[in-house]
Amino acid sequence: MSLVSRDPVLLTPGPLTTSLQTKNAMLRDWGSWDAAFNAVTAKVRKQLLDIIHGHETHVCVPMQGSGTFSVEAAVNTLVPRNGHMLILINGAYGKRMARLVEMMGRKVSVFETAEHVPTTAADVDRLLSADKSITHVGLIHCETSTGILNPLPQIASVIARHGKSLIIDAMSSFGALEIDARSVPFDAVIAASGKCIEGPPGMGFVLARRSVLEQSAGNSLSLSLDLYDQWVYMEKTTQWRFTPPTHIVMAFHEALNQFVAEGGQRARLARYTNNYETLMAGMEELGLKPFLDPKIQAPIIVTIHAPDSPKYNFKDFYNRVRDKGFILYPGKLTQAETFRVGCIGAIGAAEMRQAVNAMRDALIEMGISESVVAA
Amino acid sequence: MSLVSRDPVLLTPGPLTTSLQTKNAMLRDWGSWDAAFNAVTAKVRKQLLDIIHGHETHVCVPMQGSGTFSVEAAVNTLVPRNGHMLILINGAYGKRMARLVEMMGRKVSVFETAEHVPTTAADVDRLLSADKSITHVGLIHCETSTGILNPLPQIASVIARHGKSLIIDAMSSFGALEIDARSVPFDAVIAASGKCIEGPPGMGFVLARRSVLEQSAGNSLSLSLDLYDQWVYMEKTTQWRFTPPTHIVMAFHEALNQFVAEGGQRARLARYTNNYETLMAGMEELGLKPFLDPKIQAPIIVTIHAPDSPKYNFKDFYNRVRDKGFILYPGKLTQAETFRVGCIGAIGAAEMRQAVNAMRDALIEMGISESVVAA
Ligand SMILES: Cc1ncc(COP(=O)(O)O)c(C=O)c1O
Ligand SMILES: Cc1ncc(COP(=O)(O)O)c(C=O)c1O
Repeated sequence: MSLVSRDPVLLTPGPLTTSLQTKNAMLRDWGSWDAAFNAVTAKVRKQLLDIIHGHETHVCVPMQGSGTFSVEAAVNTLVPRNGHMLILINGAYGKRMARLVEMMGRKVSVFETAEHVPTTAADVDRLLSADKSITHVGLIHCETSTGILNPLPQIASVIARHGKSLIIDAMSSFGALEIDARSVPFDAVIAASGKCIEGPPGMGFVLARRSVLEQSAGNSLSLSLDLYDQWVYMEKTTQWRFTPPTHIVMAFHEALNQFVAEGGQRARLARYTNNYETLMAGMEELGLKPFLDPKIQAPIIVTIHAPDSPKYNFKDFYNRVRDKGFILYPGKLTQAETFRVGCIGAIGAAEMRQAVNAMRDALIEMGISESVVAA
Repeated sequence: MSLVSRDPVLLTPGPLTTSLQTKNAMLRDWGSWDAAFNAVTAKVRKQLLDIIHGHETHVCVPMQGSGTFSVEAAVNTLVPRNGHMLILINGAYGKRMARLVEMMGRKVSVFETAEHVPTTAADVDRLLSADKSITHVGLIHCETSTGILNPLPQIASVIARHGKSLIIDAMSSFGALEIDARSVPFDAVIAASGKCIEGPPGMGFVLARRSVLEQSAGNSLSLSLDLYDQWVYMEKTTQWRFTPPTHIVMAFHEALNQFVAEGGQRARLARYTNNYETLMAGMEELGLKPFLDPKIQAPIIVTIHAPDSPKYNFKDFYNRVRDKGFILYPGKLTQAETFRVGCIGAIGAAEMRQAVNAMRDALIEMGISESVVAA
C-alpha cells in the first residue's frame, strides 16, 4: 500500500474498521490513577450492562488482553476447581474454549457437530440428562470460524431447566445480536472491545451474574485472569487492578457513545444486516456460493466457497483485493477451500458494494469464471 | 480539567506521557492477518532484542495484556511444574510475583528485605547454598513501589554460578537502565509497552533464552499466557496467536523508532537522569526529603516523604498539582506517608522544573511549610 493511499476497509471479524472519532480518542494520555479516567471506566461498564439489560442481575468486569483472555478469565473464575464443563463445538472457537478448560485442569466434555450444523436445544437436553455431573456449559454464540449462529435462547432455557450454569462466548455477536439477561438465563457473557461495538482491540469484558461472581473467590489459578479479584478491586477503588490500556479504554468509550447514538443493538443489527444482504447479492452476481444455509447464518461474517477454478489461489486473490482497498479474511475450514468476508465495523452498504466490485475486478484479472465476466 | 486546557503531564510510572508522533500512529486500523502489520510486529521484536544485545541467545515474545500478564506468562511457561522459585522481595511487585507463582501451584520461597534495603548478591549466594531445591530466582530490577534499584549484574552472576535460572521483572527499568545479555546471564527479562520505551500501555513482552523456551512446551496451565505457544505460532505464521492490540503495536513501534533516534538506552538514561536531578534539586528547595538513599535510587521514580504538617493530605495536594497540569502518583508504603514522582516519559528537565513549581504553589496554597515560602 503506497503512502498516499487511503486506508483499506477491513472486512475482517476484528480488528475491524473503526470511526475516526473513535481513533481520535487515543490522541491523549491518561493517568490510570486519575478520577477522570476512572469515571470513564465506570461509564463503559454501565454502557455494556445496558446492552444486555443486566443491571438487576449482572456486573461488568473489564479485562486486559485479547478476547480469549476474557474467556479464560471467566472459566477460571466462575467454574469451581471440581466443576465439570461441557463445551458445545462447531468450529475453532469452541475447540479453543475446550482446550483452555483442559489446560487449567478442570474436567471437560465436548459435544461437536459439523461446522455447518448448529447445536440444538434437544442436543443439550439429551447431554445434560445423560451426565448429571456436568455443572457448566460453554457455548459460542456466533461461531466466527464460519459465521454460524447457535440458538442461544433455546439452549439457555434448557440449561436453566437442568439447573446448570451457562457461559457464553459472544465475541463476534455482542452488540449486534440481541442478548437480553431479563429473558435469557446465563452466568456469563464474554466479548471484546474490537468487535461489534467497533472499538480498537486490546481489552475484553465479562458480564457475570453477580450472585455467582460473589461466590467465586479463590477459584482462579491465574492472578492476571482472576475475574473476582479484578471485580472486587475495581468496586473498592474505581481503578483497574493492573495497568489498564488507557488509550483503548478511551476509544472504546467513544465507540460505545456512537453505538448509543446510532440507536443501540437494533440499529447496529439493521446496518449489519444491510451490509450482509448487499454482500450476498453481490456474491450471487459473481457466481460465488456461501458455505452456510442462510437460515443459520449470522449477519456478522460470511464464509464463501472459493471459485472452482485452477487459476484461483487465496493469496493472489487477497493481495489483488487488498490493493483495491479491501482486506478480506482467510477461511478457517479444513475440508473446503473458502474465504471469509466480515460485515461488521464502521462501514455501510456503500463499502460492501465497493468490495464486491473489487472482488469482481480481481477475479477478472485472474482470468477466473465466465459468470463473473458475464455478470 | 476543562475542555480547553492542555493535557496534563503524567509524572507516573506508566501510563506516562507519550509523544504526539507515537499517539498519531494509532489513527489507522490494521488487519491482524495482513503482511504489512506483521512486518511491524517482526520489527518490534527485533528492536527489543537489540536493546539487550540478545540476538545470539534470546528471542522476543510479545504478549497481550498489562505487564503482570507477561510476568505470569514467563513464570508459567519457563518454570516447570515441579520447579521451585525463590522470589527476592523489597516491595509490592516482588510480592505480586510471589503471589502469582503460588496461585499457579508452583513451589515458591521468598526472601524479603525492608523497602529501603536492596537484595545483595551475598544474600542470594547464602540462600541458594542453603536450599539446593531452588531452580529459579525471580528478581525485580527497579522495584517501582519505591524506586529502589537491585544490583542485577552481581545477583545474576551468583545465580549463574549456582547453575540456577533467573527471571527478571524489568518493567520500569527496561530501555533506561542497561541490561546486556552478553554479560549478564538470565533466562527471561520482562517489560511492557507503556514504560521507558514511552509507548501506550496494552502489551508486554518477554525476552527469553531460546534454549530454555524451546524446552518449555506443556509447562503452562494457561492457554492465553502460554509463552511457548505464542512464540511457536508467531515463528510459524508471523502472526499473533490471538487478536493483537493493533493500534498499540503500531504506536509502540513508533516509540521504538524514536528511542533509537534519540540514541538508545544511554541517551534515554541520560535524559531521565537529568529529569531526576532537576526534580531532586527542586525537592531540596521545597524542604522535601526523598525516602531512599540516593546511592540505591534509580532515576525512574522517586518516593518523597510528605511534608510533616497537619495541613497536608495527599488527595488535596494531588488535586491542586493536577489542576496546575501535572499528575503525581500516590505512595505505596505502609509505614511512612509519601508520594511518588515519575521521571520517565516523553518529558525533559523543563517539565520537571514546571512540576516543582506547581508543587511549590500547591504547598503554599495549602498553608504548608515556611521553608517552601522562604525558598
Ligand atoms: C467467537 C470468538 N471467540 C473468541 C475469539 C478470540 O478473541 P481474540 O482473538 O480477541 O482472543 C474470537 C475472535 O475473533 C471469536 O470470534
Ligand atoms: C516493577 C513492576 N512490575 C510489574 C508491574 C506491573 O505492570 P502492569 O501494571 O502493567 O501489570 C509494574 C507496573 O508498574 C512494575 O513497575
